[in-house]
Amino acid sequence: MLSKIPVSYQEEITAELQKAVSEHDVGVSSLLRYHMGWEDASGQPKFETTGKLLRPKLCLLACQATGGNIQQILPAAAAVELIHNFSLIHDDIEDDSPERHHRATVWKLWGKAQAINAGDAMFSIAHLEVLKLRRNGISERKTLNATGMLSRACLNLCEGQHMDISYEARFDVTVHDYLNMITKKTAALLATATALGAYLGTADDEGDRITDCFYSFGEYLGLAFQLRDDILGIWGDEKQTGKPVGADIKKKKKTLPVLYALEKSSGINRKEFEEIYSRRLLDGKEVTRIVGLLDKVNAGKYAQEKVEYYSHQAFAQLEATGIEAAKLAPLEEIAHSLVQRDY
Amino acid sequence: MLSKIPVSYQEEITAELQKAVSEHDVGVSSLLRYHMGWEDASGQPKFETTGKLLRPKLCLLACQATGGNIQQILPAAAAVELIHNFSLIHDDIEDDSPERHHRATVWKLWGKAQAINAGDAMFSIAHLEVLKLRRNGISERKTLNATGMLSRACLNLCEGQHMDISYEARFDVTVHDYLNMITKKTAALLATATALGAYLGTADDEGDRITDCFYSFGEYLGLAFQLRDDILGIWGDEKQTGKPVGADIKKKKKTLPVLYALEKSSGINRKEFEEIYSRRLLDGKEVTRIVGLLDKVNAGKYAQEKVEYYSHQAFAQLEATGIEAAKLAPLEEIAHSLVQRDY
Repeated sequence: MLSKIPVSYQEEITAELQKAVSEHDVGVSSLLRYHMGWEDASGQPKFETTGKLLRPKLCLLACQATGGNIQQILPAAAAVELIHNFSLIHDDIEDDSPERHHRATVWKLWGKAQAINAGDAMFSIAHLEVLKLRRNGISERKTLNATGMLSRACLNLCEGQHMDISYEARFDVTVHDYLNMITKKTAALLATATALGAYLGTADDEGDRITDCFYSFGEYLGLAFQLRDDILGIWGDEKQTGKPVGADIKKKKKTLPVLYALEKSSGINRKEFEEIYSRRLLDGKEVTRIVGLLDKVNAGKYAQEKVEYYSHQAFAQLEATGIEAAKLAPLEEIAHSLVQRDY
Repeated sequence: MLSKIPVSYQEEITAELQKAVSEHDVGVSSLLRYHMGWEDASGQPKFETTGKLLRPKLCLLACQATGGNIQQILPAAAAVELIHNFSLIHDDIEDDSPERHHRATVWKLWGKAQAINAGDAMFSIAHLEVLKLRRNGISERKTLNATGMLSRACLNLCEGQHMDISYEARFDVTVHDYLNMITKKTAALLATATALGAYLGTADDEGDRITDCFYSFGEYLGLAFQLRDDILGIWGDEKQTGKPVGADIKKKKKTLPVLYALEKSSGINRKEFEEIYSRRLLDGKEVTRIVGLLDKVNAGKYAQEKVEYYSHQAFAQLEATGIEAAKLAPLEEIAHSLVQRDY
């Protein structure tokens, strides 16, 4: 059931992003253009699309569904994508990841000091970008509220990341803790992307109720998206995902299936689980053993049920907006492609 | 000529900062409270004032000089201080500094991953803080413009930091390059602090001209402040500064006196200079030798002349506002204390 994300507004979003990053004549922007996949490390233009542009697409499709003007709100869509990318630049340093999308990460090429600073510059540019809404005819009040929504999403993101790093050294993290963490780390920005599109696309009098529905839609979708990622990170087909089976286990990630299995395991199985997960490096045999322990308690099935539950909730929120089905179809399509993907 | 910064609005600023950091129930905020000197590492309240609160004080004094309401614009003053502190948390990681104000830095206690993320959280909180201006009765237009001024200052800061890190490995950095770098890295945020105070304190019709004067005042003051710092970092009295003579030379910093001396030195002196500055660690004898090379070309005198030139320019900008002298007196006092300080 391989399904690709629809290519909606790819060009418009990319053009807006390129303008945002390049209009400031700052030396640091070459690091940002490299990260975005528009240049190679020596500064030569070389278009390598690295991201799916999922968040800005959701933002624009939510705007379209509520009858708004896509062109007018492009800065909001671009700002969300810039925030996402600022967090990726910093995540790669925090996780010590030398590669992303088969390319060297910013810190790997320019060092950690320059990479931290490059992420900060991307963060600043995102905040300047959202202010352009006013120039596009969005009211001052709505522009201010959009800025607030974006900054709250950033704070959620940091809080989620704080939890995620804290969890690495702990074995008492529950499924509940994990869902709380990914609500902040992953779902908050997706929720803000769709909420922003709806908020900016809707007339003032009914805006709040519809914005709330779109926020919840994005949040549930974000949870389903992350949990689908967790499943593919363990049982995914290497031909589709580009990662070997058990990739996340090899990295000792504590994703939902792992935490569920830890909760369900006891006695000797639990002890073995903790013992293997405490080692510095896991070999193939140990990865297979952990996957075996997960399968024993049907952790994959449990996670897939959660994916379906959150997807269902997401679609219910879309319906609750009261917007006619035909207008919601493109959003439903992208949502389906995310939660059913095998890659 | 030891002169301390006047204690203006210390309590109001601190209260606003504490509210800003603590109102978000985020796990990461304990790292921020520690950094600000309000808690020890175990989360126990323990008030240790670590910062001078220079930027928010300048912001409020500029507001006062233009006849504005201090209480109303406290969020702008606090936001500037939060931005300054976000940059300190990240700078300490980038410079690998284990201590600040005789306390362990955030990364030293919680690790670099958590510290990068804590800085990002502080950055987000600063952006949420400035939006509170609206709640305090500042117009939507002015609140939006204040947000833009803050974000532009952040981008300048990142650009200055990018240059600063790039300069570490280079010997062809000129005095001109250096002044350009500190204009962005140090002066832009001081300039924005004073400009914000004036902009928010002034009536709309004459706001732009006065705001520009206050921006230039803060910018020149920032340059004078940084160059005074450069002098004290080499020739300062340890009893006053808390740092041994030649402290910045030991760290092989390329501050103004060093770059001036490099430009003025040639032949064997220049060769020796570069050779010493290329070593991994400098011993006391080498530090003394470099200070000797600086003294040979009167680098300290040159830097002090620059301090006086920029101070003079700063005061001229204050005068150009056309505001009566009595109202500018507190700002002049703080400016004098900064550029004449021996600590």
